[in-house]
Amino acid sequence: MESRTIDLAELAQQLRADAVRCSSRAGSGHPTSSMSAADLMAVLLAGHLKYDFSDPELPGNDRLIFSKGHASPLLYAMLRAAGVIDEEELLTYRRLGSVLEGHPTPRLPWIDVATGSLGQGLPIGVGMALAGKRLSAAPYRVWVLCGDSELAEGSMWESFAAAAYEGLGNLTAIVDVNRLGQNGPTRYGWDTAAYASQIGSFGWNTIEIDGHDPEAIERAYRQAEQATDRPTAILARTKKGKGVAAVENREGMHGKPLPNLEEALAELGQGANIRVRVAEPEYREPRMERPGRSIHLPRFDIGSTAATREAFGRALVAVGDASPDVVVLDGEVADSTRTAYFAEAHPERFFQCYIAEQQMIANAIGMQALGWVPYAATFAAFLTRAHDFLRMAAIGGADLRLAGSHAGVSIGRDGPSQMGLEDLAMMRPLWRSVVMYPCDANQAAHLTATMVDLPGISYLRTTRGETPVIYRPDELFPVGGSRTLVSSGSDKVTIVAAGVTVSEALSASEQLADIGIPARVIDAYSIKPIDVSTLRQAAAETGRVLTVEDHWPVGGLGDAVLDAIGGHLPSIRFTKLGVRGMPASASPTEQLAAAGIDADAIVNAARRLAA
Amino acid sequence: MESRTIDLAELAQQLRADAVRCSSRAGSGHPTSSMSAADLMAVLLAGHLKYDFSDPELPGNDRLIFSKGHASPLLYAMLRAAGVIDEEELLTYRRLGSVLEGHPTPRLPWIDVATGSLGQGLPIGVGMALAGKRLSAAPYRVWVLCGDSELAEGSMWESFAAAAYEGLGNLTAIVDVNRLGQNGPTRYGWDTAAYASQIGSFGWNTIEIDGHDPEAIERAYRQAEQATDRPTAILARTKKGKGVAAVENREGMHGKPLPNLEEALAELGQGANIRVRVAEPEYREPRMERPGRSIHLPRFDIGSTAATREAFGRALVAVGDASPDVVVLDGEVADSTRTAYFAEAHPERFFQCYIAEQQMIANAIGMQALGWVPYAATFAAFLTRAHDFLRMAAIGGADLRLAGSHAGVSIGRDGPSQMGLEDLAMMRPLWRSVVMYPCDANQAAHLTATMVDLPGISYLRTTRGETPVIYRPDELFPVGGSRTLVSSGSDKVTIVAAGVTVSEALSASEQLADIGIPARVIDAYSIKPIDVSTLRQAAAETGRVLTVEDHWPVGGLGDAVLDAIGGHLPSIRFTKLGVRGMPASASPTEQLAAAGIDADAIVNAARRLAA
Repeated sequence: MESRTIDLAELAQQLRADAVRCSSRAGSGHPTSSMSAADLMAVLLAGHLKYDFSDPELPGNDRLIFSKGHASPLLYAMLRAAGVIDEEELLTYRRLGSVLEGHPTPRLPWIDVATGSLGQGLPIGVGMALAGKRLSAAPYRVWVLCGDSELAEGSMWESFAAAAYEGLGNLTAIVDVNRLGQNGPTRYGWDTAAYASQIGSFGWNTIEIDGHDPEAIERAYRQAEQATDRPTAILARTKKGKGVAAVENREGMHGKPLPNLEEALAELGQGANIRVRVAEPEYREPRMERPGRSIHLPRFDIGSTAATREAFGRALVAVGDASPDVVVLDGEVADSTRTAYFAEAHPERFFQCYIAEQQMIANAIGMQALGWVPYAATFAAFLTRAHDFLRMAAIGGADLRLAGSHAGVSIGRDGPSQMGLEDLAMMRPLWRSVVMYPCDANQAAHLTATMVDLPGISYLRTTRGETPVIYRPDELFPVGGSRTLVSSGSDKVTIVAAGVTVSEALSASEQLADIGIPARVIDAYSIKPIDVSTLRQAAAETGRVLTVEDHWPVGGLGDAVLDAIGGHLPSIRFTKLGVRGMPASASPTEQLAAAGIDADAIVNAARRLAA
Repeated sequence: MESRTIDLAELAQQLRADAVRCSSRAGSGHPTSSMSAADLMAVLLAGHLKYDFSDPELPGNDRLIFSKGHASPLLYAMLRAAGVIDEEELLTYRRLGSVLEGHPTPRLPWIDVATGSLGQGLPIGVGMALAGKRLSAAPYRVWVLCGDSELAEGSMWESFAAAAYEGLGNLTAIVDVNRLGQNGPTRYGWDTAAYASQIGSFGWNTIEIDGHDPEAIERAYRQAEQATDRPTAILARTKKGKGVAAVENREGMHGKPLPNLEEALAELGQGANIRVRVAEPEYREPRMERPGRSIHLPRFDIGSTAATREAFGRALVAVGDASPDVVVLDGEVADSTRTAYFAEAHPERFFQCYIAEQQMIANAIGMQALGWVPYAATFAAFLTRAHDFLRMAAIGGADLRLAGSHAGVSIGRDGPSQMGLEDLAMMRPLWRSVVMYPCDANQAAHLTATMVDLPGISYLRTTRGETPVIYRPDELFPVGGSRTLVSSGSDKVTIVAAGVTVSEALSASEQLADIGIPARVIDAYSIKPIDVSTLRQAAAETGRVLTVEDHWPVGGLGDAVLDAIGGHLPSIRFTKLGVRGMPASASPTEQLAAAGIDADAIVNAARRLAA
């Protein structure tokens, strides 16, 4: 049966039946949350979504995100209706080895991003729509299926504000207002007018409909498609568990298989086996290829001083010059992070996200899913605001390039609220992440350029104040490498530093040499992956290892070094210097001293170690 | 000069002059962001705030939060006007050792919570107002000074929704709409009507005023004070840098001292030295004392199985029975975390925060500042949503008790989006935090009760599935302790486990014993602080240490153990088992096997270590 002749109500029942069947087979899952949205998705699939399932990367494809990721059975039922997975695969839902996971991930080629932590799909959809409006000639539309419960997440409101402000007429949020959360009724129940008033106040078109009426849904989608200058939110009143009396609109039926599969299928009319021929986009241009242009990085003179954030900002311009697919996102601190240079050089690829770090990261996730190469930057401390988005980005295999400025106590007088002191501890556990912390401007510039080709999440930690330039402009700093800055055959201790502590370590090594304690100094700019072989060799040769970092003593450089050398421990002594007390306001120099991570502190610790 | 005769405009100029002076002396700070709000704060201090500065803990005191924490110079100027700090102290602003930090912290007795990460003060104020409405007989009012830039933060909208829904007539948000952010104009500029429409759509009273007109401000505060059933937002149109032509309403003047101090003070009329007698609250009852009642914990039988989340939930009821100051906050997953039991037993002290983890933590921060004892719980994975709030809570010295359920791959089929795999890595770096991970129900119950008296942030990691009960109900589990479950004088390897991996380790030790590799098994339920002496002794005695955890291999138990034994290393061999691949859907048993953290994996790793 083909699209033009499809009975939409029947298709919706088929989607429900498939959602019920696969979750019953799995013994878990969210059939009732799928059933409420089945009519909404049936109408979308059969008449509005433009998507070439044979070529998911096609820029002209519409994008569909399940922000309510737990309704994955409905999504998989749609894939079966579209003919890209079969009955057998559908029934692997939630089983070991299946790509039909409990919550959607890009292991399926038609899924762009991982969802399942509520309140993230719409923000990511905003990023995709923003790319469609500002970067791409492809006239695609972004459809996001949202739950009503997730409207309590602040991230959704960052999106409502951003999407309206950016005039994203290519974005439609379909809100499945099924009234029931996990534990009971939502705040507003079926009061779609309350949602419409709230969302409308930000500048969205809003349409309230009966979410089980195919004609009303059809009209709403058509209205949404006609919008050009503002996004549309469809507030669809639905019933959770719609279609099966035993669960329909009942509390206590969240996130579990239906009590009686046979009865349920009987009610849903289990016979349907509709195959939808989904409309394909007319726009058939392929994705942009990155030209093989070389990057002309800024150069800083050895012996001068410069801030690594400055080098990052200037290098980013050079990266942007060479690569037209590079985009930059800012959280209203571009003058601090120095992405302001990119904003000036490439305004068409610079995105001001205002003080909304979740939306900033979501924009980046959405854009990279469509082939763009995003760098996002704010204060390192404020990246914690987007931790859950970073966690989900790693699950979805997103390629993100992040820079966190104002790392550590060395920022000085602003105090601890502005100091990134846990950023390494947050970034290192992220699956397949790369974490780098340059000590000088040339190194920072080089690493900024390196990031453009890195898969997964890469993070560059930058420093507010100026540090001495110690490397030549054309030196190379591979990921996973390190630099041994001072060494001799008679070293009695190894000092491992990174970023702002490298110059302290160098200064300490001079003092230590004067008192007969030759010290090896290693710049561990690549904190993950870390240079295991160099560190192990140094540990074996010197027998004493001292790490020093402008970060809490947990989760940062010291732990990375210990992890590197800890598996093969000869008898060594180890000391980790980090920020152990809560800092307050003071000058950068005072801060390093107070935290016990300056040259004097290193000398003292090294003397104790070597004693 | 006393309050009744104060010239409010003159007082505002004094506040501006003080803000300008102290930031010029410091050489940094935010005078212009202070100047815009000076009239708003002058009127509040002189005529509306009810506060006994000699007794900051008095429950009857109004509460004032600077959500725009960077305007701290204005706050300190208010303290000087109130007579609690003097000229000399004012001028220590941002200096080493001063409690007048760059951003406000509770090192000053009149400041309840740390601010400086934007978008947090209003959410915390909601928590305080919620306590005022639902918990306390004290008729205090909560005043929050907000910036306009921070309205882009989603957390603010979690607050707008929550405050209106809870009918917090005792809450007033004073929004200083000065039009300029750090880098340039905000999204809505001076369009206070846009803000009023947005905030009003959630159910707030909104009042738009000229924020430099003392009479208009006066009227607005009076209106706010008369509200009983809904919060009030005052949208005050102001000029950044108001009062000094060189900076007034100019871009590029954010976060720096004024260019010419003498000229500025001349313009501001530097002579004023008004001392405000701030009105004291009429309600003089002191804070509740916690009764010394004993806690009757649930008891689980050795040999049975039970989920630690279940034990947590039941113990929480017992804690609440004994302590009337204990409150519980939920992120709409109470049936999962098992705080549902508390909701049933003590509904008046249970707070449904819906799916808004930032607001949930903020509520807890606000409530603890007023003497309540909050426990907040959601999935461990979703606590990452509130990471920035936890970071700031640590800076502010807040006492929070957190529980994260559904930790690790052992949850099974829901997949990685629901698995807490980085929670230990997030919680351990928090300053002075305590991190606990029980393996059985009696231990979980005991630790839940222990938390009630812990200062700072304490975290309990709980497990979805049932685990064997191995401890007696009346055993004690001190913070910083561990349990050696298997040991002999001939142990060849030490296995350190926690939570769900303890039973795997016990099973592995039996298999290892059978093949002639006696293994010590340690239950490291206290992950921070960890039992350093027991671990060091075991490392020294067995020479081989194996850690196994249901967490990413970075930042969790393994790193904590390595840190404990790493400083004093004899020649030992160390292996860390954790979740190294990205999990998908599977059964709990399959997940543990796939992640390489089950008994078989432990046996294999121990054999390699002992070889």
